[in-house]
This record gives sequence, C-alpha cells and structure tokens, in this order.
Amino acid sequence: MGIVVTEFERVSRKTAESIRGFGVATVHEALGRKGLMLPYMKPIFHTAAVAGSAVTCEVAPGDNWMIHVAVEQCKEGDILIVTPTSPCNDGYFGDLLATSLQCRGVRALIIDAGVRDVSTLEEMNFPVWSKAVYAQGTVKATLANVNVPVVCAGALVHPGDLVVADRDGVVVVPRLLAEETLRKSLEREAIEAVNRERLASGELGLDIYNMRTRLAEKGLRYVGKYKEE
Amino acid sequence: MGIVVTEFERVSRKTAESIRGFGVATVHEALGRKGLMLPYMKPIFHTAAVAGSAVTCEVAPGDNWMIHVAVEQCKEGDILIVTPTSPCNDGYFGDLLATSLQCRGVRALIIDAGVRDVSTLEEMNFPVWSKAVYAQGTVKATLANVNVPVVCAGALVHPGDLVVADRDGVVVVPRLLAEETLRKSLEREAIEAVNRERLASGELGLDIYNMRTRLAEKGLRYVGKYKEE
Amino acid sequence: MGIVVTEFERVSRKTAESIRGFGVATVHEALGRKGLMLPYMKPIFHTAAVAGSAVTCEVAPGDNWMIHVAVEQCKEGDILIVTPTSPCNDGYFGDLLATSLQCRGVRALIIDAGVRDVSTLEEMNFPVWSKAVYAQGTVKATLANVNVPVVCAGALVHPGDLVVADRDGVVVVPRLLAEETLRKSLEREAIEAVNRERLASGELGLDIYNMRTRLAEKGLRYVGKYKEE
Amino acid sequence: MGIVVTEFERVSRKTAESIRGFGVATVHEALGRKGLMLPYMKPIFHTAAVAGSAVTCEVAPGDNWMIHVAVEQCKEGDILIVTPTSPCNDGYFGDLLATSLQCRGVRALIIDAGVRDVSTLEEMNFPVWSKAVYAQGTVKATLANVNVPVVCAGALVHPGDLVVADRDGVVVVPRLLAEETLRKSLEREAIEAVNRERLASGELGLDIYNMRTRLAEKGLRYVGKYKEE
Amino acid sequence: MGIVVTEFERVSRKTAESIRGFGVATVHEALGRKGLMLPYMKPIFHTAAVAGSAVTCEVAPGDNWMIHVAVEQCKEGDILIVTPTSPCNDGYFGDLLATSLQCRGVRALIIDAGVRDVSTLEEMNFPVWSKAVYAQGTVKATLANVNVPVVCAGALVHPGDLVVADRDGVVVVPRLLAEETLRKSLEREAIEAVNRERLASGELGLDIYNMRTRLAEKGLRYVGKYKEE
Amino acid sequence: MGIVVTEFERVSRKTAESIRGFGVATVHEALGRKGLMLPYMKPIFHTAAVAGSAVTCEVAPGDNWMIHVAVEQCKEGDILIVTPTSPCNDGYFGDLLATSLQCRGVRALIIDAGVRDVSTLEEMNFPVWSKAVYAQGTVKATLANVNVPVVCAGALVHPGDLVVADRDGVVVVPRLLAEETLRKSLEREAIEAVNRERLASGELGLDIYNMRTRLAEKGLRYVGKYKEE
Repeated sequence: MGIVVTEFERVSRKTAESIRGFGVATVHEALGRKGLMLPYMKPIFHTAAVAGSAVTCEVAPGDNWMIHVAVEQCKEGDILIVTPTSPCNDGYFGDLLATSLQCRGVRALIIDAGVRDVSTLEEMNFPVWSKAVYAQGTVKATLANVNVPVVCAGALVHPGDLVVADRDGVVVVPRLLAEETLRKSLEREAIEAVNRERLASGELGLDIYNMRTRLAEKGLRYVGKYKEE
Repeated sequence: MGIVVTEFERVSRKTAESIRGFGVATVHEALGRKGLMLPYMKPIFHTAAVAGSAVTCEVAPGDNWMIHVAVEQCKEGDILIVTPTSPCNDGYFGDLLATSLQCRGVRALIIDAGVRDVSTLEEMNFPVWSKAVYAQGTVKATLANVNVPVVCAGALVHPGDLVVADRDGVVVVPRLLAEETLRKSLEREAIEAVNRERLASGELGLDIYNMRTRLAEKGLRYVGKYKEE
Repeated sequence: MGIVVTEFERVSRKTAESIRGFGVATVHEALGRKGLMLPYMKPIFHTAAVAGSAVTCEVAPGDNWMIHVAVEQCKEGDILIVTPTSPCNDGYFGDLLATSLQCRGVRALIIDAGVRDVSTLEEMNFPVWSKAVYAQGTVKATLANVNVPVVCAGALVHPGDLVVADRDGVVVVPRLLAEETLRKSLEREAIEAVNRERLASGELGLDIYNMRTRLAEKGLRYVGKYKEE
Repeated sequence: MGIVVTEFERVSRKTAESIRGFGVATVHEALGRKGLMLPYMKPIFHTAAVAGSAVTCEVAPGDNWMIHVAVEQCKEGDILIVTPTSPCNDGYFGDLLATSLQCRGVRALIIDAGVRDVSTLEEMNFPVWSKAVYAQGTVKATLANVNVPVVCAGALVHPGDLVVADRDGVVVVPRLLAEETLRKSLEREAIEAVNRERLASGELGLDIYNMRTRLAEKGLRYVGKYKEE
Repeated sequence: MGIVVTEFERVSRKTAESIRGFGVATVHEALGRKGLMLPYMKPIFHTAAVAGSAVTCEVAPGDNWMIHVAVEQCKEGDILIVTPTSPCNDGYFGDLLATSLQCRGVRALIIDAGVRDVSTLEEMNFPVWSKAVYAQGTVKATLANVNVPVVCAGALVHPGDLVVADRDGVVVVPRLLAEETLRKSLEREAIEAVNRERLASGELGLDIYNMRTRLAEKGLRYVGKYKEE
Repeated sequence: MGIVVTEFERVSRKTAESIRGFGVATVHEALGRKGLMLPYMKPIFHTAAVAGSAVTCEVAPGDNWMIHVAVEQCKEGDILIVTPTSPCNDGYFGDLLATSLQCRGVRALIIDAGVRDVSTLEEMNFPVWSKAVYAQGTVKATLANVNVPVVCAGALVHPGDLVVADRDGVVVVPRLLAEETLRKSLEREAIEAVNRERLASGELGLDIYNMRTRLAEKGLRYVGKYKEE
C-alpha cells in the first residue's frame, strides 16, 4: 500500500505522434480489437485527440492525494491514467492540477472518476476523458500506488503503454505491440481510403466485400411484400 | 431468420420535408403523445434535425452484417433504423457506411446501439442518433431481418413510417397518420405562436390557459409564510 | 397537498451576482463541501453559468401544472427549482414556459426531470440544468406545493437559498450562509491564484502544499523497477 | 386517447398450460429468439412460472387509473400486461388490485414500472414481474388505452398473445405462432434431454455438437504455456 | 466539519411499534405521499420490517469512521441512517458494527451506500436497507457530522424522525407528524380491509370507487374489435 | 484471435478449501483491498460460497462458442471465469453447460454477462455469479481466447489465480499471494473474534480501537442541541 515506481520504459514519442491521427476505432482494430476502455469514458470537449505514454495512478475513493505524487513522475508526452480503488465519481482533478501537468508537457488525463473546473480545462485546451463531471472535492489522507499495472474503465494499463484517445473512446496498446499496431493502422487506413472512394461513387459494400454469396449460403432470402409469419 | 423485404410504401417525401421544421416535441404532441423513442437516444451533434421514411434493420449483438444488406434497400429521403436483437453498445457503424448512405441520399441513421468515427461523421454532416459512442468493432457472421416491423428504443417502427428526429429525441409516426399529424402540427404551432407572443409580453399561463378556477377547485391554497405542518 | 407560499426572504441580488464568477467547485469548497446536487444534473449548453435566489416547485410525475403556478411567484434574479414527487424524465418544460420566465427576469431553471425544445432554449439563451432531455409531454391534473423546502437531485433547497450552477454542477447555499460563503470563495480564489502561478512556473504541489513529509510518515516508498509482490 | 377494446381472440388455454413447463429460455429459442422483454424485468418471488393470454393496458406516468379499467376485461387464464406511456417506477399495483385479479383467475401481472405491497403479494402467491419495487403511490386522473398493441419492456404485445414468464424473464409469443412454438419447444426439450444425459456422463459439448473441425478451420490454436505476444 | 449532536427528541417508542405493522406503502399514503427514499434502497433479506427513531450519520466516501462515533449515540428502538457526503457503494458496515448496534437495541441500519458480511447479518437477523452489497472496505480518516439533518437516498431525515422500512422501501415521517400518520394509517387500513373483502368477492374497483361516470366524462370509449386508427 | 492455453499452474486445492470459509470481505482485506470485482456481480442464490482456481475464457458479444472450448480445460476444483470482449447481458450459459461443468468437478461460474435456466441451476446447486439473468440465447460463430489474462468485472484474472466468491461479491487473489492471504485471513479472523465478543458485551468500537483521541485531534466536537449554522 503506497509505492511509487520511478523507472519504466516508455513507448517511443515518435510512435505515439504517428498513431495519433488514425483515431481510436482504427487503432483498436489494428490491435485485434483489444484494450478498449468502457464506453462511459467521455472527453470533456469533442475536438480532443491524443496519444502518449501511460503513467498510472491509483487513488482511494474521494481522495486525490496520489495524483499530486503522480504529477512528479510525469514527463513530456505522457498521459496520466487515474483509477480509484473502488468506484467513485468525485471531482478528483481541476484546473490547478491541469496547470501542473500542462507545464510538464503531459498530453491528457484519463480518469475513471470525476473531474471539475471543466470550463477552465477546456479554455486551457487540456484534454480529459472521464466517467463524470462533478464539483465534489476530495481529501488527502490515504496512500495508493503509482506506476503499477492498473485496471482503468475495464482496460489493463501498464506504465509506458501507448494510450490513444479521441471522441470514440480510449484504447490501450501494450508498449511492445505499439510499432506493429502503428504499421497495421497504416495498412488498414490505406485499404479504407480505397473503399471510401468506391463507396462514395455508389458501389455497395455487398459487392466490394463480396458478401452476396455468403449471405445466400447462410439462407438470406429476398421477398416482396412482408407477411406476418 | 434472415429475410429482406424489398417492397413497401414510403411516407411521401413532401410530408417529411414539411414536418421537419416543427420539431419532435410538437410532432409528438400532434400525434397524441405516442411513438417516442426512449430518452437515451442522443444525436451525435446538436444541430441535426431530420425527417424521412424508415428502412428497418435488425442486427445480432456485436454483428453489423445486416447493415450492409440494408444499405442497398435505402433510397433518397430514407432514414435507416437499426436495432439489435439483444441490447448492445458496440460501434456498429462508422464513416465508411455513412459514406455509402450519404451517397444514396439517406437522411440519417437511428441506432439503438453504438456508433464510431463520430468526429468524421460530424465533419461529413451525417446525422446519427444513437444509444452510445463506442470504438468497439463488430463481426459479420449472423443473419437477421431487413424491413420487418421492429421495436427500436421502445418504439414500434414499420418500414415506410415517418421518422422525425432532433435534439429532443426521435418520434415515429405511422405512415397513414403522417398527413394528419402534419396538419395538427401546423395548427398546434399556430396556437403556440400566439401564446408565445402573449407570454413574452408578460401575460401569465395561469390566465392564458384559464387555470385559476380549476386550481382553486382542486384545493390550491395561497399562504403567506411557510410553517412546517 | 397544494399550497403556494408567497412570502419568504430572498438572498441578496448583489451577493448572487458577486458569487457567480467563482464557479460551483469553488463555492462548494467555500461552503464546506455541502449542498451539491447529484452529478447527473447537466446544463443543456456548456457556456451557462448562473447564480440566483431559489423558487421551489414540486410537480407530480408526468404533470407540469404546478410550474405554471410557480412562474407567477418568480421575480427578477430568481432561479426556478423543480423537483418531481417521484422520479420522472418527462419533458416538463419547453420554450413557452421559458419565454414566460425570461420575461420575468428569471436566471435559469434547475429541474430533476426532463426538458424539451432544447434547441430553442439554447437559441433564447435560457439556461437549464436537467436530468434528461426528452420530448415526452405532460398533463395538468395534480396539485403539489410551491415554495416549500424540497429535495432536488439529492440537495435540500429552501425558497430564497442561493443557487449557483455551471458546467461542474449545481450547488445550494443556505441563505444565511451566503455572505460568508462569498467571502470564503474570495479568499480561496486568492490563494488559488498564487498557487496557479507557482504551478505554472513548474513548482510541484508536493512542495507547495508540503506533502512530502506526511506521505513518508504514512509509509510511501519510492522504488526503481516494479516487481509483482 | 382512451379506448377499451373488448373483443379479441385469446391464445388457447390448453396451449398456455402445456408450454408453461418449458421455461422462457426454451420457448424463446423455439420462437426463433424473438419477443423477449428486457432483462430488467424481474419476478417478485423466484418460484413463479406462468403462461397465459395477454390483456394489455397503457397507463400514464404516476397514474394507475386504467388498471382498474383493465381488470374488468380480464378472464381466467389471462396475464395482465401494463406499460406506462413514459418511463416510471411508481408503485402502480398492490394487494387490493391483486385480490381483484386473483378473484378473476388472472395468472400474473407483467408491468414495466413499479409495484408495492410485495410481501403481501408473495403471501397471496400472486406472481408479478416488474421493473421496480417502490411504495410510491399513483393518482387516477388520465385516460389511456386497454387492449391495443403495446410495447412493454422492449417487446411488442398484442392482446391475446401468449406470454410466458419465469425467473429467466418474460417472452411474448404471437397468438398465431403459439401452437408451432409449443411443438418446437417439445422437440427442443427432447433433444436437450438426450444431450443432458450425455453431458452428465462426461461427454463434451465439443464432441456432441461436432465443433472441433469448425473451430480449427476458423483458426483456433492450442498452445502450451502462455507468452505475452 | 465534524460535530456530534447529543440531544434531540425521539419519536415515541410506542408509536413506532404501532405503525410497524402497516407497511411502508400505507404509511406513505397516510403521510400524504411524502418522505419516501429512492427505490434503489433494498433490504438484504425480504422478511425485514422495522420502525424506529432516526439517528443520522454522515460519512466521507470510502470512510466509515463516523459510524463508530454514531454507534455511541444510538439507543434501544433507534434506526441508524447513514449517508455518504458524495455517492459511494463501498461496504461501510459489516457484522462487527452490527454486533455493536444489536447489543444496544438498534432496530436496523439504513445506508445510502454498500454493506458487507450480509450472510452473517442475515444469520444475526439484523435488518439492513442499502444501495449496494459490496465487500470493498473503508478507511477511518475523515470527520463528518452525527445527528444533523441529512438527505438520505432523496429523503430528508432529522434525528428523532420516525423511519419505517419494509420490502417496499423506506419512508421518513417527521417526528411531529408521527401520531397523526399512525392514526391515518389505521383509518386507511380499515377502509382497505372492507374493500379487500368486496374485491375478493368479485366486485370491481370500477364500481366500489364509482369510477365509471368520471371515466365516461373524460371520454373513455369501449369499442369492439381494434382498428389501427 | 483464438488461442487456448493448456498448461498453467493452479493454486493449491488445499489453500482454496481452507480460505473458502473466511468470506470475500475478510479475504479482500487480507489481500490489501485489491482484486475485487465490481458490485454488480451477484450470486443467483444466496447460500453459495466457493473458492477455486481460475480458468479464464473470453467470449464475443452474444456468442458462447468459446465456453464449450473452455469446459474441456476445466478440472476438479476450478472456477470458470467468462468475460465478453465487449459488454453484453445475453444468457451465455444454462443448465446443459452447468451439467458438463458439474460433471468435471468445477466449483462455480463467474460471468461478466448473463445466464439463463437459473431455476434449474439453483436446483442443481451449481453456483453462478453474473451481471444479469436473461433468457436471450447466443450464437457460435466467433473465436476468442481461453486461459489468457482477462479483465472480468473490473478485476484482472490470470489462469490459476485463486477466486473466492460469496454473497458479498467476488475477489481474485494472485496465485503467488494465495498462501500469504490465507495466513492473513486467519490472523484477521482471530482478531475479529475477540473484538466481536467485546462488542457483543457492550464495549464500544470507539474504545476498543482507541479512536477518541484521534477524533478529538481532528476536531470532532460534541454539542447539545443542533443549531443551523
């Protein structure tokens, strides 16, 4: 109860920067449909889209003390991941902590709990994905761990993992799979670009993806008018 | 399990165009307070306001195969209604499917499940009402029905019904009641316009709607200071 | 069942105007972390930030009759608080009632239920905090009380209390504590302004707030690499 | 707004009695995985298992007037289906209404809202499936319809449809499909009885259902120890 | 932040004992449909039915320290009401605290949060109504208040108020209204006993309550077969 | 996508048997308040209390194919942990699969989704903890992994971990910490036994745990009558 891990490898900054543009849906597919946080995680403003290296921080319910500890462990390009040890919607984080993180070059906060001062956070252009927006303050009384593996909104996160977030949600890519996932995202995007053009010209997905035969084999039937069976 | 109905009558395009401006709250009243989808259905961007003829599509949980089938059944002026056969928040629909629908003149997607690529959907100005925004992808393995009557977010929808959606929600008007509902919406709006002006000038609803007598009959009492009974 | 209290003291207009700028998170701290409504209460548009004196209104589920009664009791600078006698998400309030309130100088509606016509409400720049947005209309059949103490979204509200609302939520300040809460908000803001500057210059909260010793006393340990215990 | 349909065909009593023993899971499969109410519908006591012919009843939110009207339309072997016109958890139904229904030979109440007096209902052995248990009473002020098609907890119900309910949930079988669904339930149960015995003797589903080849074709691989990819 | 009020008047023990048998639904009606906690409050075992005088206790999220303080303020016939200062489902209370309360003659715990050791609590026959069952433990670090007015699960509770709880929920009766509410409960029950007998003999509520005329006046129509309008 | 790990170390059967009696609340404390699943996981019958070695199984939404694969990997003393790759409440598991598991000596199923045939499961005395009870069936079309680390209801589970479940919830103890957690559970239980006796004799927790001084230092004040501040 209460350790701070100070040394771990971070995903490369360049990989994070390169993958940011693809979006969470593409990255999640490229990773093999894993690592997605639950859909209740929402950005406080819609234009936010980030990628970076995870710093993980556990907090007690209603107690944000460890976030202050975690700030010191954050570096340029990091994303701070905060998860309470039991479910809580309190406003753990506001504009003062954001000022500190922004000063250190941190890209975003991902928190499976609440935040506050969100109007100011948006003005500061500091991106946050959270479970709740709630003015309720917190105390500083109980220790927890920084930079140990955590489960955040249903996803396992190790310090140094690649985290990608946008309006579709948040995905966690294990550090050692980051390069490969970037590559597959590129491939996927290239294919989609071609298909997007064909679809825009009026071709049907049924034909582009050769679905008609398999649908018929499964037994799909086209009928004229509907009759209650 | 797995039929596609190809022939059904659509609500007239003109009726749909005319009713669009009234808004869901007015249309719902004009219809007699029926046909509203549950309040968890939300537009992905606030300015969207559409009306059109329903194409209905069932999907298996986590499986968007039938949406590809339904696209082919869609025409200019339609609204695609998608409902899973059991509750699911996965991201069934993204920018590629939207490209295809937009190309065919489809007005919007209404889905009792999740969507993804929502930033792109907003850039494309393709309106969507959904239960969730979630990057989770889907498979293509299981058949379901297209253009049969479905229950979507608590509302019964037949193919060809008039669907009206805006920031207040989504309402389904049975095709044969569409003309009458348009007419009643016009009447209602005319009355409201008068009342709006009177209210804006400081008259009270209590007087405009003649409520004082009935309130008194029911036993409403005005007292000075409050005393705990 | 069915009284309207017509006389009560209101928090001073000047106090309300002064406290508005501090935001709910600050006011809630200044009050001693009390009086916050539950986090499901959301503004219909993000820029809204208001403070005013409470007029309270109970309503039956699915019945907005008493809101019409309450409107007459509202004055310049008031905020109307509406709470159903049992939980309900119906759209109790739309642009006509908003027209009437705006005409009387009412600052906002706070409702532990649903509202509708929200696009129009936003165009009118009439702020609303609600539990839901829902086109479902209501009837006018059942009496309830106006200007009695009510519980709204978990917070106790007396008529004349100071209500402050912004994007972080809604807080209720008892009328007799309003002056003191304003003063403490000022003090708190002054301290935060200094700290914000220090944090922006790179100082750590750990140092500014002297946390290191107490963390060590509690047993916080810094380790190099992580080992599964 | 406010009609009572007095004539409709009921599913045969014998079919209902015969299908009751199979359970909702089996009947739902036999029907082709349709007609299931949402999983929040729960029995107030676990031993309840019923089947009968639907009488449908709409109610306004917080208003149980129409249930009194619907009681008169109920006969021996019926199941009363109650659905509010907008979502509500109030306690619409208690031991007095249950006394009346039980006296008429009604098998159960299915209500997409709340009930109360549940201890007494259990003592009376009157089965109820509901969305909530809640002491909140209701008024008698607003009309709605009896014996029109309704959507209850996500399922479409016509008067006279076969309704089957047990601890797994509630399923609605269209009246004209009742006989066929009974027959398929019998067939399904016969197959399951054989498989149950084989499984109990230690045979694996993988072998009984011949899954191994298809799993291998899809690419399932068996490995020794796990290695993080 | 942190006071314990030691003197307050309690509702009479005799009144509490007398009202216990009527049940929450009846008492809630007798009080005029006020004071009900939200429907998520559930007994950990179904046979529990209690009435007593409220001792109120605030707790910080994830921190049960103040319950230990509150225990000392409890006497024979009391019911302990615990409410967190922000929403929390942690297991604040287990068999050790229950042992202490039971030893002092406390009738029950009502907690707007979680409890644990519920199997043991049921064996001890110590009734609890809670929002959650959850093994998650709590810390002892933060002060709050005992025996001040609190909002618990949406209901306002003063120390000494009469609290009645059973399977239908929890209702709070202000101390000064307890006698009158008992009297009205008796009256109501007497009327219901007569009606129950009439209903059991086959009379209809439509006739007993003289509803037919008013239904007709409102426009209720009886039709033969249903036609889609 | 689609591997089955066949070799891993299991927690010792003796340790599991010994820890079973302590209950989840005690084990969770002994482990240092970690590893708890979310509170929505509920036993289908209250008397169930189990401990065993985890076999982990991912499933696609609405698709229980991999459970059939996982059954073959289960041995005497195991607990099967099933988690969907995206949230789903379908009834993945019924009495046939339970027959197969029971035949192999499996102690229980823990599933972050729905189950069905629960009346039969209770008759069979096969314990299940689930997120939902729902008759909705599933398909067999998509591969996933067996015996890889999974996140189930917010807790990380490795194959071979010790899982303990009772009415308070489900806790996961990493295999290498199982012995130590058993020892600490014993110690904790011994201390609690002493305290339980002291509390039962009327001593207060305030005195047994020496809380009075620290409460006073924090500023707790005892006052006579309450005055609104």
